[in-house]
Amino acid sequence: MAETTPPLFRRAALIGIGLIGSSMALAMRRAGLAGEIVCAARSAATRATALRLGLVDAAFAEAAEAVRGADLIVLATPIGAFGAIAAEIGPVVEAGAIVTDVGSVKAMVLRDVGPHLPLNVHLVPGHPVAGTEHSGPESGFAELFENRWCILTPPEDADERAVDKVVALWAAMGAKVERMTAQHHDLVLAITSHVPHLIAYNIVGTASDLEAVTQSEVIKYSAGGFRDFTRIAASDPTMWRDIFLNNKEAVLEMLGRFVEDLTALQRAIRWGEGDTLFDLFTRTRAIRRSIVDAGQETQAPDFGRRAPGE
Amino acid sequence: MAETTPPLFRRAALIGIGLIGSSMALAMRRAGLAGEIVCAARSAATRATALRLGLVDAAFAEAAEAVRGADLIVLATPIGAFGAIAAEIGPVVEAGAIVTDVGSVKAMVLRDVGPHLPLNVHLVPGHPVAGTEHSGPESGFAELFENRWCILTPPEDADERAVDKVVALWAAMGAKVERMTAQHHDLVLAITSHVPHLIAYNIVGTASDLEAVTQSEVIKYSAGGFRDFTRIAASDPTMWRDIFLNNKEAVLEMLGRFVEDLTALQRAIRWGEGDTLFDLFTRTRAIRRSIVDAGQETQAPDFGRRAPGE
Repeated sequence: MAETTPPLFRRAALIGIGLIGSSMALAMRRAGLAGEIVCAARSAATRATALRLGLVDAAFAEAAEAVRGADLIVLATPIGAFGAIAAEIGPVVEAGAIVTDVGSVKAMVLRDVGPHLPLNVHLVPGHPVAGTEHSGPESGFAELFENRWCILTPPEDADERAVDKVVALWAAMGAKVERMTAQHHDLVLAITSHVPHLIAYNIVGTASDLEAVTQSEVIKYSAGGFRDFTRIAASDPTMWRDIFLNNKEAVLEMLGRFVEDLTALQRAIRWGEGDTLFDLFTRTRAIRRSIVDAGQETQAPDFGRRAPGE
Repeated sequence: MAETTPPLFRRAALIGIGLIGSSMALAMRRAGLAGEIVCAARSAATRATALRLGLVDAAFAEAAEAVRGADLIVLATPIGAFGAIAAEIGPVVEAGAIVTDVGSVKAMVLRDVGPHLPLNVHLVPGHPVAGTEHSGPESGFAELFENRWCILTPPEDADERAVDKVVALWAAMGAKVERMTAQHHDLVLAITSHVPHLIAYNIVGTASDLEAVTQSEVIKYSAGGFRDFTRIAASDPTMWRDIFLNNKEAVLEMLGRFVEDLTALQRAIRWGEGDTLFDLFTRTRAIRRSIVDAGQETQAPDFGRRAPGE
């Protein structure tokens, strides 16, 4: 039976083939979701890698070439490039095709991509909340999206059949799918992802600029907590620059809250208010438990860096 | 030959038997470092667990009972209890015994413990920079200290033979040993451990207090970065309250630097200064590489939560 069922998409075009694009290629192949998978990548080395790893059937330098004949187009570059790519593919994208993306900010997709697409092309923005600190086509793996959430933010007047197909795509790659407005997405991700990255980048920067403590000491004694921040602060610089520039309002709002709370904590330390500290530290422990219970985290101590008794 | 070599210590008394105490008991047994290991724990349940797991040969409710006849005493409770324990054991501790500790703040040990000990007892404060987010005697494992640093901060007039024995103890448990002043230790750990914990606790608190984003959304979409902070923010509340109350000056100084840098970053976002962001994010990536190169971190993506291709 399976052999006679046509794949969900005839031809999928991945514009950009980094960690997310290559993981999608592998996950789509595994589930037989597309008859053909092609990609566009500016760098010849990236195109060669994508072909060598068997991620795609063909690789193009220009997005406009890759989207010809595609009924699914996935924007998977840093989000700052979305506007230019949309302008490039708008004139050649096939009628009825679905354009989606995997960017970490969503309101800007409607703003930067939407205006360039013909009316008979369906824009269904999406964001798989999954990743590692590694980048590039060699870091992808088919299981990246399993048991992770993918958030779709279609505009109010979206074609529901197109939305259903994108839901089916992500579900077939193992993800759980949620739908919300782009504005709400950007607020939720500002606190669960963007501000955490910002403060991780910030403390790693602060630590490396000290005079009284050497960089070699910071590295030697990083197991006390600091090293966990460096993982986050090792994420792709271009991707993260674009996120902060394109989710400015929500990030600044959440950062304002964070700093307000931090100031209260600073004051509690200065005045020796042990109960205030103890109460917060007890409350935060419960949230960790909820995340482990929700299957979004492993309970292995120390992230399984070293298993007890092994 | 090994059978006839006497162990490094005749009788080791662990005052407190949580993650670090139980890991020390297991590591000391494995390496045959003490003829006998005993512990003191206030809670009857903890004493029963320690005996059931074979961590210790005897368990006492009172520290003063546990230290009788011991030539090594390790303070392994939250640091806020050190002063009272020192006052309790001072009158009964054996001449020539070594008193050490595993606390995360070191100047306060000289201040709170030193004055209670007789002159013929050797105080050699220590801090193994190792741990997980789990607590209690059941979370210990013998390998916790392997390839991790243990910092010793003996006072200037310390007995060098006593210092050598504590160095030998940690080396035999697999740790690398470094020596520095208590003041410098407290500054180094403020930036590599204490401030990272504080901002992790803080952002988890901020996220759980929002109105526009529900707690269930924070939990669902935590894989975007937030969950890494919750691991740190799940550490023992009593231990961490005591750390902030006892390393106030260094924590406030480092926190001041952090906030200053964060304000600059906030401004760069507000004004759309992409190059400032990109430069910082590139610099921090290099520090991550140094930590992995120094063997203080695994390079497995996502802390080995999920192996690529598995």
